[in-house]
Amino acid sequence: MMRTYLDWNATAPLRPEARAAMIEATGITGNPSSVHAEGRAAKSALERAREEIATALGAEGADVIFTSGATESAALILGGRDLACAAVEHAAVTAWCRDDLAVDAAGRVSVPEPGRATLQLANAETGVLQDLPQGLAASDLTQAFGKVPFAFNWLGIQAGFVSAHKLGGPRGIGALIVRRGTEIEARIKGGGQEQGRRAGTENLIGILGFAAAATAAQNDLDQGIAEKMSEIRDSLMLRLESGAGMVTFPGRESRRLPNTLSILTPGWRGETQVMQMDLAGFAVSAGSACSSGKVRPSSVLTAMGIAPEQAGDAIRVSIGPTTDHRDVARFADAWLAAHDRWRQRNDTRATAGKV
Amino acid sequence: MMRTYLDWNATAPLRPEARAAMIEATGITGNPSSVHAEGRAAKSALERAREEIATALGAEGADVIFTSGATESAALILGGRDLACAAVEHAAVTAWCRDDLAVDAAGRVSVPEPGRATLQLANAETGVLQDLPQGLAASDLTQAFGKVPFAFNWLGIQAGFVSAHKLGGPRGIGALIVRRGTEIEARIKGGGQEQGRRAGTENLIGILGFAAAATAAQNDLDQGIAEKMSEIRDSLMLRLESGAGMVTFPGRESRRLPNTLSILTPGWRGETQVMQMDLAGFAVSAGSACSSGKVRPSSVLTAMGIAPEQAGDAIRVSIGPTTDHRDVARFADAWLAAHDRWRQRNDTRATAGKV
Repeated sequence: MMRTYLDWNATAPLRPEARAAMIEATGITGNPSSVHAEGRAAKSALERAREEIATALGAEGADVIFTSGATESAALILGGRDLACAAVEHAAVTAWCRDDLAVDAAGRVSVPEPGRATLQLANAETGVLQDLPQGLAASDLTQAFGKVPFAFNWLGIQAGFVSAHKLGGPRGIGALIVRRGTEIEARIKGGGQEQGRRAGTENLIGILGFAAAATAAQNDLDQGIAEKMSEIRDSLMLRLESGAGMVTFPGRESRRLPNTLSILTPGWRGETQVMQMDLAGFAVSAGSACSSGKVRPSSVLTAMGIAPEQAGDAIRVSIGPTTDHRDVARFADAWLAAHDRWRQRNDTRATAGKV
Repeated sequence: MMRTYLDWNATAPLRPEARAAMIEATGITGNPSSVHAEGRAAKSALERAREEIATALGAEGADVIFTSGATESAALILGGRDLACAAVEHAAVTAWCRDDLAVDAAGRVSVPEPGRATLQLANAETGVLQDLPQGLAASDLTQAFGKVPFAFNWLGIQAGFVSAHKLGGPRGIGALIVRRGTEIEARIKGGGQEQGRRAGTENLIGILGFAAAATAAQNDLDQGIAEKMSEIRDSLMLRLESGAGMVTFPGRESRRLPNTLSILTPGWRGETQVMQMDLAGFAVSAGSACSSGKVRPSSVLTAMGIAPEQAGDAIRVSIGPTTDHRDVARFADAWLAAHDRWRQRNDTRATAGKV
């Protein structure tokens, strides 16, 4: 059966540019810490990739510290600091902070003390974009990087973190970006790599794949991919809205990622929708990818004031640069058909109940 | 110029089996935490790889926790525990332990209290193999894995850790192996991956490359690669010994890795030798790869009782499964020629000094 992947916020397919860079990188043998020619060649490839990623992030002159992904980056910059955050943050962030910042119905977070807080740039489930306050201690840039244009150096924040696999790079590689010279206490020790902030032989294949993907994502943005995705996403939204009575789109009224659509149908469980769509050939998710495979009511939606019993009735559709109008049209057909069957069953039950 | 890579203990060239597995893995899109078909396919590939690595390690039934490498694994199992260790351990281990265990001249470590200590199975610089005491809290198995046969389940230890890139897998992926059910406090949090012990979307391409490399390394061992490497290494040792008067081979009298040769020539700086050999087309190292590119006197050799001023006069040659007799013969020729030039310069100076 033909499959249509609409879960790009969970992980994006590897970009061809990343794949090619990684295959080429398999031929680089040296350890970047070795002083011989093989080591120097590896070091040089590593530093070129670091520059490329800094450029894609608009972080020229800042320190780009490679990690195994955004989750490790979050631990490295947030661990032990007891910063404030909102419940709309990813679990890799809330693991380290007090999640008591106020969130309004549109998903926007208030940050009274930016220097003691962390705030994501974009939300994984709703796509809601935040206006980051000047002097913010840290920001999870993972879902925004490669989907909307921004420059780290213009955000006015102390630190940010990203993962390669959300923009078409490989999984297992990411970065922490800090203003030059920021003190970071290493959590993984025993080598001078990454200026003593993150020990361990560098994941060169992953890093070169990351750099190629980041550059390709920036090129896509320069070519107007955000506008294209936004138009496709909105056409899906309008189609579902006109075909289904009760559906809402949390975060709709906010500025948000061009590729993300949160769809809430009161009374129709998100996990049921995900399974039915899976059987129909579409990969979507209920909330963000949850490692246990269990589905919990989304803390993102409850933070926006949606009742817990309704927050479990949402699914997320997230598209990518190669998603086209036909992909979302087929999804809309399948979803609306499933929606009608669900409503008919409900109506039958209600009628039966009345008899 | 033709290059000969003799620094396999720093990092090994990627095995063709690992490269093929990684290229195939680039086509797996799903996040293993997602419940849809793409997620389940990724999860299934991940768990097959985990089984393969457990088999190669002789760790069936133990828990294999994927990390970004041995350095992270060391932090995860050793951090905050204040275990005892010896100064022959890698810096990723000594970063977390008191390195005051006694080391004898042959490089062997005494462990009075195994349950409160960590001890490597093989040393990176000399190749010296330790007899691990029963009940040992943890062991760095990184340099031994794939070079000598052993089974985690037969070692009688609580935990062990390994890196893929030392046996021909990719850099940036490794594992911590613990007896089933051992409590581990996650250092990277915010997801239920790896049974809650290590959060973050899994590095699937790296993991599949690791599994393929580990299996290939085990097959090589089954085919007698250790004996073949040992014979080539010993032929190099005897050749250097007969051609150079003052040379010694620290760890020679101990049971050791078949691929490793530490070569000490009193008065001839290791870093000078590494540079001269590099210019002659050979990649070797002085001590273990040091991220800063600086060369410090080896704490491994000083722990064995070699004077600090001599410990800087050693180089390490480490070969791999594809190294052949001609490779080491060419190295011996180049090294002995450089050695003779060095001795002549020394003699001239000594004579000049006496005039």
